[in-house]
Amino acid sequence: MAAESKPQPKKWIMNAFAMAAPGHLAPGLWKHPQDQARNFDNLEYWLSLAKALEDGQFHGVFLADVLGLYDVYKGPQNKAPALAAAAQFPIFDPFLVISAMASVTKRLSFGITASTTYESPYALARKFSTLDHLTKGRVGWNVVTSYLESAAKSFGLDTQIPHDERYLIAEEFLEVFYKLLEGSWRDDAVVQDKETGQYTVPERVRNINHKGKHFSSVGPNTVHPSVQRTPFIFQAGSSGAGKNFATKHAEAMFLPGMTPEATKKIADSIREQAKVNGRDPSSLKLLAGILVIVDETDEKALQKYHDYLSYADFEGTAALFGGWTGHDLAKFDDDEDFKFSGPGAIQSMVSAWTATVPNSEDIKWTRRRVVQELAISGVCAKAIGGPKTVADQLQRWVDVAGVDGFNLSYAISPGSFEDMVKWLWPELKRRGVFWDGYEFETTRENYLADGKGPRLRSDHPGSRFTWNSDEELE
Amino acid sequence: MAAESKPQPKKWIMNAFAMAAPGHLAPGLWKHPQDQARNFDNLEYWLSLAKALEDGQFHGVFLADVLGLYDVYKGPQNKAPALAAAAQFPIFDPFLVISAMASVTKRLSFGITASTTYESPYALARKFSTLDHLTKGRVGWNVVTSYLESAAKSFGLDTQIPHDERYLIAEEFLEVFYKLLEGSWRDDAVVQDKETGQYTVPERVRNINHKGKHFSSVGPNTVHPSVQRTPFIFQAGSSGAGKNFATKHAEAMFLPGMTPEATKKIADSIREQAKVNGRDPSSLKLLAGILVIVDETDEKALQKYHDYLSYADFEGTAALFGGWTGHDLAKFDDDEDFKFSGPGAIQSMVSAWTATVPNSEDIKWTRRRVVQELAISGVCAKAIGGPKTVADQLQRWVDVAGVDGFNLSYAISPGSFEDMVKWLWPELKRRGVFWDGYEFETTRENYLADGKGPRLRSDHPGSRFTWNSDEELE
Repeated sequence: MAAESKPQPKKWIMNAFAMAAPGHLAPGLWKHPQDQARNFDNLEYWLSLAKALEDGQFHGVFLADVLGLYDVYKGPQNKAPALAAAAQFPIFDPFLVISAMASVTKRLSFGITASTTYESPYALARKFSTLDHLTKGRVGWNVVTSYLESAAKSFGLDTQIPHDERYLIAEEFLEVFYKLLEGSWRDDAVVQDKETGQYTVPERVRNINHKGKHFSSVGPNTVHPSVQRTPFIFQAGSSGAGKNFATKHAEAMFLPGMTPEATKKIADSIREQAKVNGRDPSSLKLLAGILVIVDETDEKALQKYHDYLSYADFEGTAALFGGWTGHDLAKFDDDEDFKFSGPGAIQSMVSAWTATVPNSEDIKWTRRRVVQELAISGVCAKAIGGPKTVADQLQRWVDVAGVDGFNLSYAISPGSFEDMVKWLWPELKRRGVFWDGYEFETTRENYLADGKGPRLRSDHPGSRFTWNSDEELE
Repeated sequence: MAAESKPQPKKWIMNAFAMAAPGHLAPGLWKHPQDQARNFDNLEYWLSLAKALEDGQFHGVFLADVLGLYDVYKGPQNKAPALAAAAQFPIFDPFLVISAMASVTKRLSFGITASTTYESPYALARKFSTLDHLTKGRVGWNVVTSYLESAAKSFGLDTQIPHDERYLIAEEFLEVFYKLLEGSWRDDAVVQDKETGQYTVPERVRNINHKGKHFSSVGPNTVHPSVQRTPFIFQAGSSGAGKNFATKHAEAMFLPGMTPEATKKIADSIREQAKVNGRDPSSLKLLAGILVIVDETDEKALQKYHDYLSYADFEGTAALFGGWTGHDLAKFDDDEDFKFSGPGAIQSMVSAWTATVPNSEDIKWTRRRVVQELAISGVCAKAIGGPKTVADQLQRWVDVAGVDGFNLSYAISPGSFEDMVKWLWPELKRRGVFWDGYEFETTRENYLADGKGPRLRSDHPGSRFTWNSDEELE
């Protein structure tokens, strides 16, 4: 060899962010002639999306979810804006599209959102075990505690459980979940021994007998251990309680922040807190949510963005914003400038934009302007341009914020993802930051890429419940 | 024409009865070299089963379900017999295999078991709406209230809710379910109008604002109306409370009974009670559960039965029986003759067998003999023989009990179903009782075959909640 080879740059995790609804973060884009997501109620859409994403070697597709309507804007309890714009509504149960998508793919992972507030841990353990078997280890769980008042009221509550209490419930939920998935069947419980006639060795299955404040469950899990046992755990908590929870349990986190600099602060504090919680920070991958609009040139990409913007539904965007923040934009004057007044959440968003939007200081950040900025990308950053421009921007996120990859939302589906494959991937490959394709079969192995197999890492709190084959029987 | 054609005989409903477990009613048969159901944890099994059943023109496949372990036998709370025999355990969430099966079929229906005791009506409405869209109207719901103590304890209850109270809860559950599926979206709510920018017309979606004793839910359903709206409703209640519930809500019922004569009594009383409940008895189809073992000749079929019996797991059978009846067979003496003593449930079963099993009167009905009779078929009847013998037996069920078809269980899967297609279907076609194949797309149309479309019939209690396009807005 002539010289030592340069160290390989880190390969990025590239995750497709979607939703089982007519649209996700870009209300109104269902009107775009090339959008297919409006056919979300047709199985063909999901089959072709799965195939396109695996052909494009996305790590996985991640399905966000909400359990009710966004009804804060022009509210309270006004369903009209979200309904008209199809702003994340109607919306399917995301679990139910997975086996079909799995049947036409071999390596693509599936992240599924499910709520610790409205699920039963026993039933949810069964769901994820079922899908982890059927996909041969290709599922992840995006743990959420849910934030829509409308969901609470449809699940029979008078009002939402308070935020921090939801996280206490989530904490116990996860404990029950791990006990069922990791601890109620020994790895070698199923033997299918035709000589002895034993399908399962009974002594290798045990009850969990959990009795806690919020849950009790005898167990065992109704399903034998799957390839990953516990699905790969995603989380996006950014509040105090949420961050503490996420840094314990998450194996990948979606980070908020409109700039690499803002996200760096969050990323640093997460890695710090992960250490406090006994985690190896390298086993907690950080993904920045971002909208990529890419084409052959900067000009074409910008044209594309403006084309998309012409289909955007600002009323629907305001409806989403109302649900996310609790702020009803209809309550502000048309000409109020959020640079100088308004709720802190909006002011800090605007202040982030002043750092990224050209001539932002000169812009009057009225509610209309705010909504326009949120349309298509929601509260995520945007990277719009030709391959080099977008690659440079993503590289800045990696360099400055230290993220491990991206959760890539769409303006139109699958068009936005296909554009990334066509225009962005070749540039990323040239730079050595795009992987060489699926090296492994399971979600955990493909996302963590540490060669340590499909099961929970030893620093993960779920791993202390694992009943391995070499451990003694009850 | 020379003469008036004979009236066509009624076409039978032929439904495949299965379970997302290593076996359903025949514990131990997973050891049989031709059985594939033991690969239930592999998606390929479900894809090939779906294709085989649609090629064979079964009306549908019906997935039974339980939410816990059978632990009464040699108990209480003894998991060993069921685990070793894989007696309906491990078991998957049946919802999660459906979209994959739907993706490789066009007309086959899917009956899914779900419990009104452990589900939320809001979440369940969403699940069935999702699947009814994805399958284009090919799903049914087998409404159960669940009977396993072990399930109750894993869902956080100290003990099961009493039987009749479970049915009161189920009654309100169905009301909420209908309100969500039939009443919260007007048929013409989704317009996808690119001119006005409306995906959904907001005035055509309304809350249900249900406040009852057991449930409250604001709504609306998170999913727009699907082809059938309400899934086709199956039920199997045979108790007093169960029968009252079923004759109101069911569109097809699975009937117990080991002989056509015993089932006739049940069928007659069901049709009677259906009338009392305001139902048109012809819109409530009755299916007898039966195990068919068929081959070229009677002798070969009997040989096959004995071959299967040699793989049967009697301990697993006793475990199932314990869960179904609450009776622990281990508590009886080896030589006790259930013709003369023992619990009523067992005695009446034995008395049914004396009518069907050759020389039954001379048999000492010990627990071993009882279990042997239950092995492979469970508490369903058996039809074993060549094509003519089996067809004659089924014809007797239709003639005597007046059933509309059969819920056909398997000894081995898909082998038992393939045998029916190969040996039995030609004979049934000759007799004019096998349909000419799928005339319609939806479950309701194929099962009711009354030409009245995919929605609930007007005599059905759910139909009063339906919000049709010609009805006024809120």
